[in-house]
Amino acid sequence: MKLQLDCIPCFLRQVLEAARNNTEDKKIHEEIMLEATKIILKIDQYKTAPEVGRDIHKIVKKHIGIEDPYKKLKDMCIETAEKLYPDMKHFLYKQSNRLYWALKISAVGNVMDAAIYGTKSVKENFAEEFNKEFKICEIDKLTEDLKKGKRLLIIGDNAGETVFDRVLVEELLDCEIVYAVRSNPIINDATIEEAYASKLHHGAKIISTGCDAPGVILDECSEEFKQIYNKADVIISKGQGNYETLSDEGRGIFFLLKAKCPVIANNIGVKVNDYVLIQK
Amino acid sequence: MKLQLDCIPCFLRQVLEAARNNTEDKKIHEEIMLEATKIILKIDQYKTAPEVGRDIHKIVKKHIGIEDPYKKLKDMCIETAEKLYPDMKHFLYKQSNRLYWALKISAVGNVMDAAIYGTKSVKENFAEEFNKEFKICEIDKLTEDLKKGKRLLIIGDNAGETVFDRVLVEELLDCEIVYAVRSNPIINDATIEEAYASKLHHGAKIISTGCDAPGVILDECSEEFKQIYNKADVIISKGQGNYETLSDEGRGIFFLLKAKCPVIANNIGVKVNDYVLIQK
Repeated sequence: MKLQLDCIPCFLRQVLEAARNNTEDKKIHEEIMLEATKIILKIDQYKTAPEVGRDIHKIVKKHIGIEDPYKKLKDMCIETAEKLYPDMKHFLYKQSNRLYWALKISAVGNVMDAAIYGTKSVKENFAEEFNKEFKICEIDKLTEDLKKGKRLLIIGDNAGETVFDRVLVEELLDCEIVYAVRSNPIINDATIEEAYASKLHHGAKIISTGCDAPGVILDECSEEFKQIYNKADVIISKGQGNYETLSDEGRGIFFLLKAKCPVIANNIGVKVNDYVLIQK
Repeated sequence: MKLQLDCIPCFLRQVLEAARNNTEDKKIHEEIMLEATKIILKIDQYKTAPEVGRDIHKIVKKHIGIEDPYKKLKDMCIETAEKLYPDMKHFLYKQSNRLYWALKISAVGNVMDAAIYGTKSVKENFAEEFNKEFKICEIDKLTEDLKKGKRLLIIGDNAGETVFDRVLVEELLDCEIVYAVRSNPIINDATIEEAYASKLHHGAKIISTGCDAPGVILDECSEEFKQIYNKADVIISKGQGNYETLSDEGRGIFFLLKAKCPVIANNIGVKVNDYVLIQK
């Protein structure tokens, strides 16, 4: 999906937040904002939002001199999600439509970072999210496709959400699952390190996409990833960043996400905060 | 109050909204965003947010070729407010602390533009706003000052809100009131034209500040305004833009506003959406 002008203010808001989360030095905040604004001036050279996201977050890394500024948040998200894991499994075993609820658990994992920072407790927050139905849920198509072929590729998103994805992986163990993550730290997205910390290797083969953007830019991906992507019978893509980079590929990918921003909600045809499982 | 980095994304969000409200031509939206971003690159040359606001809204005017892009909205706000005026007067006559409620009515007028665009009816919206107490209300100081001197200067903000201010003006008719507005159209702020359309001349002398920013930049104001400002016994300043440009003057101005954004709420020491009457 093409980058929208609405993303511009959002990039600058995000980069300021990232700068402040990492240093109290106001001079550095100003320098980061100035450099990020220079990127915005060249915005017509970018195709998708995750490409811009990568470059503006590189500015933050450079100025604060830390390669993985979100490491602490990522670890905290995984730790918190691990505490919720037994409840999720217990809940799931009571359900009759287990695939539906495993998909829902995986989708809800996408709010992990917001839940940690929210005013309500993490448990309350998730209880609320579980009660929201999918606005679009193409589970029948997914079930059909899973019958036809067993090579399943899941493209991960945030750290912490990865633990929720493990619940989905464990429901689909009759498949040959590959779980792909970012090649390098970018925002709070999972890398190989966080995928292992989330014990995803218990049910899936973990690989890097070869791309360090907060999405999947196919031209930049490794040959290994592209082969798996091309051969997969079913692809489940998690979160907004992957949707932004892959939704126009026409590959029949199942996008599993919560629409967190109006641009993406609008593109899908739902409202902000709606959950979807949609094939494109 | 000094311009904050938080204002940058907000400027770009506002300017995009203004562009889209006035033309559907996406090429023009892009050009406006690009020019606005160039202004952001020079942000250290600006002292306050309203100075930037003026310059980025000039870009919109230039590209769409309309001198007063908010004219329709301003007229609609005045028309809607006029319909509420009899109810406000009726409500006020039943109150024992009339100055308090006249101040509240004037402060609530600040949500006129949002109320028109909201999902609830304008009446419902205002009923809710009236029920919110002032978080800070230095009415005792104001009453005291109004006893000492009768030269009252009110600095207006948005069109529509001006009708609500008329209710306040009519409660203070024992004062010699001057009501000051922007010299030229800027966003939905009132100019002399809207002040007259709001019948403020029935109780006050209407003047222009001489400044066309969405705030009062004293260095740019006319000699006439500066004399009135300097000699006034009491000054009531409406809205955020005037607060941003005048709050550090140390002039003992009474700022009457709803804190609509976190930067201003934080500066005052209240929460977003709180109403205040505070002397500074």
